[in-house]
Amino acid sequence: MDALDILTHIDQVVPYYQPIFSADEQCIVGYEVLGRFQQGNEVISLGPFFHDETIPEEFRMEVDYAVTTKALEQFVNEQPASLIFINRDANVLMIDRGESFLQLLFQYKEKGLSLNQIVLEITEHHFKGDIQQLGHVLTYLRTYGIQIAVDNIGKESSNLDRIRLLAPDLLKIDLHSLRTSTVSYDDVLYSISLLARKIGATLLYEDIENAFQLQYAWRNGGRYYQGYYLHEPSPSFLPNDLLKDRLRDQFHTFIQHEKKKLQTLYDISEQFQARVSDLVAKHKKVSSFNELISALAKQLSDCSFRIYVCDEDGFQQSANMFKKGDTWELQPQYEMKNWSWRPYFLENIIRMRSRKRGILSDLYSDIETGEMIRTYSYPIDEHHYLFIDLTYEYLFEHNAHL
Amino acid sequence: MDALDILTHIDQVVPYYQPIFSADEQCIVGYEVLGRFQQGNEVISLGPFFHDETIPEEFRMEVDYAVTTKALEQFVNEQPASLIFINRDANVLMIDRGESFLQLLFQYKEKGLSLNQIVLEITEHHFKGDIQQLGHVLTYLRTYGIQIAVDNIGKESSNLDRIRLLAPDLLKIDLHSLRTSTVSYDDVLYSISLLARKIGATLLYEDIENAFQLQYAWRNGGRYYQGYYLHEPSPSFLPNDLLKDRLRDQFHTFIQHEKKKLQTLYDISEQFQARVSDLVAKHKKVSSFNELISALAKQLSDCSFRIYVCDEDGFQQSANMFKKGDTWELQPQYEMKNWSWRPYFLENIIRMRSRKRGILSDLYSDIETGEMIRTYSYPIDEHHYLFIDLTYEYLFEHNAHL
Repeated sequence: MDALDILTHIDQVVPYYQPIFSADEQCIVGYEVLGRFQQGNEVISLGPFFHDETIPEEFRMEVDYAVTTKALEQFVNEQPASLIFINRDANVLMIDRGESFLQLLFQYKEKGLSLNQIVLEITEHHFKGDIQQLGHVLTYLRTYGIQIAVDNIGKESSNLDRIRLLAPDLLKIDLHSLRTSTVSYDDVLYSISLLARKIGATLLYEDIENAFQLQYAWRNGGRYYQGYYLHEPSPSFLPNDLLKDRLRDQFHTFIQHEKKKLQTLYDISEQFQARVSDLVAKHKKVSSFNELISALAKQLSDCSFRIYVCDEDGFQQSANMFKKGDTWELQPQYEMKNWSWRPYFLENIIRMRSRKRGILSDLYSDIETGEMIRTYSYPIDEHHYLFIDLTYEYLFEHNAHL
Repeated sequence: MDALDILTHIDQVVPYYQPIFSADEQCIVGYEVLGRFQQGNEVISLGPFFHDETIPEEFRMEVDYAVTTKALEQFVNEQPASLIFINRDANVLMIDRGESFLQLLFQYKEKGLSLNQIVLEITEHHFKGDIQQLGHVLTYLRTYGIQIAVDNIGKESSNLDRIRLLAPDLLKIDLHSLRTSTVSYDDVLYSISLLARKIGATLLYEDIENAFQLQYAWRNGGRYYQGYYLHEPSPSFLPNDLLKDRLRDQFHTFIQHEKKKLQTLYDISEQFQARVSDLVAKHKKVSSFNELISALAKQLSDCSFRIYVCDEDGFQQSANMFKKGDTWELQPQYEMKNWSWRPYFLENIIRMRSRKRGILSDLYSDIETGEMIRTYSYPIDEHHYLFIDLTYEYLFEHNAHL
């Protein structure tokens, strides 16, 4: 496709719309505008044209202007959904600090567009300017009700500090990297989803190509979804509830699956509550915590590889009982170490002290062994707490390894 | 300082050691090796020399070799702590894929160095090569027991995917950015600390310059600390327990402070438990959930701005009662929206269903209002759950806004 062909036939430049579905309503919440070139029966993506830096910027801007105005025109006339997503390169946006973009929108405001329907989708991972300045411009645009989406989270660019600085309303996470990468991004997405929760950003997962990815996105805090698995870009808008029945069914399956998983964890926690309180009662007469954990180790060999006791401030009041192969050994060097700095530690102490019940932790990496584990912690009395680290093997066997 | 002066007086190049303190033992757990040049009574940092790209690489490597060998020599002889942190630029390391670094260490292995005492501190934010290749080399070095620390987390470089890919044993977080930045990094550090928990990495906070920063680091999952507030770099090793008493006292203060905060949250949760269960009992005879939330709104005007009911799958079974200014309004468009995709949602449902008690949430940004809020959720019966969003104002007044 020759760039000149496009420029001389700008009437053949058209917007395509890829629908974005929401988990809360199972409806189309908005459309992303994409540029296409219509040549006879063929429809060609303008993506390569827009990203071709050998083409002078003013030409690309002219074509982009054609796509955007046609899209806004159609959107204002048909009002097919709440939101319209318009892409802007951060470098281009910053040329006039967003002014021309804003002026364009104002024209359609008169025709009935509400600016809070606009989502400005900003690509910032090859942004060459000052990120703080970009942040100021985005803040300025936001005063008009325009929402900001930051693109390409999950690719090389995703940087928490930048996300925090730009304070976007939406984070767009590309699932493409999940397909090509060898490492697991679960942990990264978990962190991003909690950051989003803290800063009040909505997660939009794009490039969803199969049911597994949809479930993955749903499980990882995704509110909005986009991708060929749901719907390809099309030249016209679609009925809002196009996939409502299908999505409701799929989400129902996800929800049941998740609840079952959570119920399993709850049941395991209950079993440990019964088992450990029995054991602790049986060994009430031990003369020291080391004696207690030695006695417990024998009984908990099927599930645990490390047992110790801490006081309510996190100071370890016993050695570690640690299982190497089939034998338990006492590791006295751990005595009086403090663990209160660990995430959730004091929170769990307060909870155990108040509820007088044990707690099964989330899944996390043991710092020493590198294994994925959970810890069952249990209040011995108001001042002493038992920690029982459970092996991955045990968790796997009991479906508690996810 | 002229580069040639350094090169012609390489005998005046010496290692300095900055101690790293651990929260679990309140002792010095290791030392970071830093290059210095001794000129009479003056001691000059070699930092600028090492980062000066106009100086040929082989010269910088020669000086670095002098620093490192002297440091390893002294470390092996004195065995002052568990760990020694050695800096390597990722670009330099990759020239021979870590081989020369490994060979250097092998020399000291014969003299009594254990390779699991080595922490390779890698600077990767201006790394020009293939990050996957770097990952492979680090994995290879790790097979010898060498630990990997990734530097400069919290500066512009911190990228979760890269962190995940390099899978470091330690993340070094620079508190410097906290001082210069206008935005709060609490949320970012919270995300990083949870990622670290998931991947089993230890957090090391560097550049700690005052008590507040130490507390900040401690609160945000920091296990290791470094900075002038604790100790400046010095030419010799220090007694392990140099700051033990002081640190134990400081941590004690932090712990008491944190426990008090958590206890406050617990007390608030208990108060809501009593208050809401009373209110729900009083309005048992309402004919719909909308009637229930309308009645509750009047009683909860002091603390709440949004009230609604969901079923156990997260489908909203009522409208929203939403407070605008001083008046509550019913927003029917929220009915049947689904919220199960939100972090913690189903987890909390299972917990409430099992325990038959309400839950006070963490602090998070409300997606619609942007305010920092907490939600008190409460089980009406086995299938229906009440959600009461608490205003920031109320949380602030009751010390629950942190």
